[in-house]
Amino acid sequence: MRLVHGAFDHEDARQHLYVLLTIFRLGEKMERIMLKLYSFGPGANSLKPLLTLYEKGLPFEGHRLNPAQFEHHSDWFKAINPRGQVPALVDGDKVVTESTVICEYLEDAYPTAVKLRPDNSYDRAEMRVWTKWVDEYFCWCVSTIGWQRMVSQMARAISADEFEERIKAIPIPEQQTKWRRARDGFPQDLIDEEMRKIAVSVKRLDDHLRDNEWLAGGVYSLADICNYAIAGGMQFGFAELVNRQDTPGLIRWIEQIADRPAAKKMYAEVPMETLKPRE
Amino acid sequence: MRLVHGAFDHEDARQHLYVLLTIFRLGEKMERIMLKLYSFGPGANSLKPLLTLYEKGLPFEGHRLNPAQFEHHSDWFKAINPRGQVPALVDGDKVVTESTVICEYLEDAYPTAVKLRPDNSYDRAEMRVWTKWVDEYFCWCVSTIGWQRMVSQMARAISADEFEERIKAIPIPEQQTKWRRARDGFPQDLIDEEMRKIAVSVKRLDDHLRDNEWLAGGVYSLADICNYAIAGGMQFGFAELVNRQDTPGLIRWIEQIADRPAAKKMYAEVPMETLKPRE
Repeated sequence: MRLVHGAFDHEDARQHLYVLLTIFRLGEKMERIMLKLYSFGPGANSLKPLLTLYEKGLPFEGHRLNPAQFEHHSDWFKAINPRGQVPALVDGDKVVTESTVICEYLEDAYPTAVKLRPDNSYDRAEMRVWTKWVDEYFCWCVSTIGWQRMVSQMARAISADEFEERIKAIPIPEQQTKWRRARDGFPQDLIDEEMRKIAVSVKRLDDHLRDNEWLAGGVYSLADICNYAIAGGMQFGFAELVNRQDTPGLIRWIEQIADRPAAKKMYAEVPMETLKPRE
Repeated sequence: MRLVHGAFDHEDARQHLYVLLTIFRLGEKMERIMLKLYSFGPGANSLKPLLTLYEKGLPFEGHRLNPAQFEHHSDWFKAINPRGQVPALVDGDKVVTESTVICEYLEDAYPTAVKLRPDNSYDRAEMRVWTKWVDEYFCWCVSTIGWQRMVSQMARAISADEFEERIKAIPIPEQQTKWRRARDGFPQDLIDEEMRKIAVSVKRLDDHLRDNEWLAGGVYSLADICNYAIAGGMQFGFAELVNRQDTPGLIRWIEQIADRPAAKKMYAEVPMETLKPRE
């Protein structure tokens, strides 16, 4: 600050103050938009907010947790999400949980040029019927089989004592049950029922996608992102159900999303976990 | 239309056209806002859009189906919602299904002075965590016990042959299973698990409502309406869990919602079903 004839120059002070305030506000804004996403790699529920962030071009700080080290049940992460579940989005002093809710939050809070919800109210309702269906039906049956095939290896790779310690750290009773089943084996009637539901789900998606480019309102939306989070990759893991001959609509749509620049960037930048017990 | 010296008066024609268009648009709008709601009485999932419509003061044509006559599985209703589920909202030529989606649709499509979603994005996300929790956890455990106590009476009041006919008309396999269990009896371990979940749910709501007037963002919202749809009435049906001594926060909130003018009007105008097999 400059003193004029030993006196305080108010105009000059105001200008200095203005510059300082601008810097302060910008810093505050930068702080505010430093989104942090805690997630696993780009698959299942973690993929939903990841792909949404990449599609919207929002800068964020990614924290990838290691499920094989039960990092999502650790105390430091439960301080962020007491339910011990990823994904969790930290925006300033707020924590947003539940993958589908995070996606809608990003649309509400960050209205970028890229819109991932249809403008029309009816199409938006259709979008929500699809995202709700993923959360209440589709994701569960696919998840059980995924756990049977992969998480069981993690659950069996550790000693009985360590397993019990790990179980104690899981805050949700239903998740404890799922881990026990992963170690002991899932009941066969449950596996059969889940496979039935997977076949129903795959048919539902393919029926729609044979006649429609996207799931809701004729535009690429959260309906596509949230369903792709579960269906993408099924052409490998469930090739007997999802293949070019039986489900051409579903395959075309999976490839179309995987081929988007945002998806390519996401896969290039965020590694998929290998699910090795001691990565 | 008036002819001036045998010539076509363009200005006059324009005015006539304007009046005609205005009448047409008004008629179109009147047609458009003739909302029709297909539902059961004011309880559970049917209450969600009912109370939302009453709170927003939106005129609608109510069609109450009789569950004891399996009306929601009838062909005429499955032509409206192929899943054979209420509630379903008909808005012009569009059908919106899924109770929570209908509530968000009414907010999107009819932005009335009464707002049932918080303005703030974070509070709105909190609201959605609560409505999602109802749909994925809270409503299911309460529903099973409700079915065990009441729907079982309907399922047992008819002959085995009629029951099989009724089952055939149900489009969702999981609903067929639920009806069979209602008739044959639910497994005791399922009942025990659902009662455990109900106790967890009641505690979760009460813990929050002891310190907060409403569930999300400090305002009455769809979070309250959707949870009240399930929790309202539990002070009678689950009095050992929901009572003034054990859950003062939950009781205060239930009474506060039941006492709102919109809720009183809804209960006065829309009868609750008695669930008698031959109403």
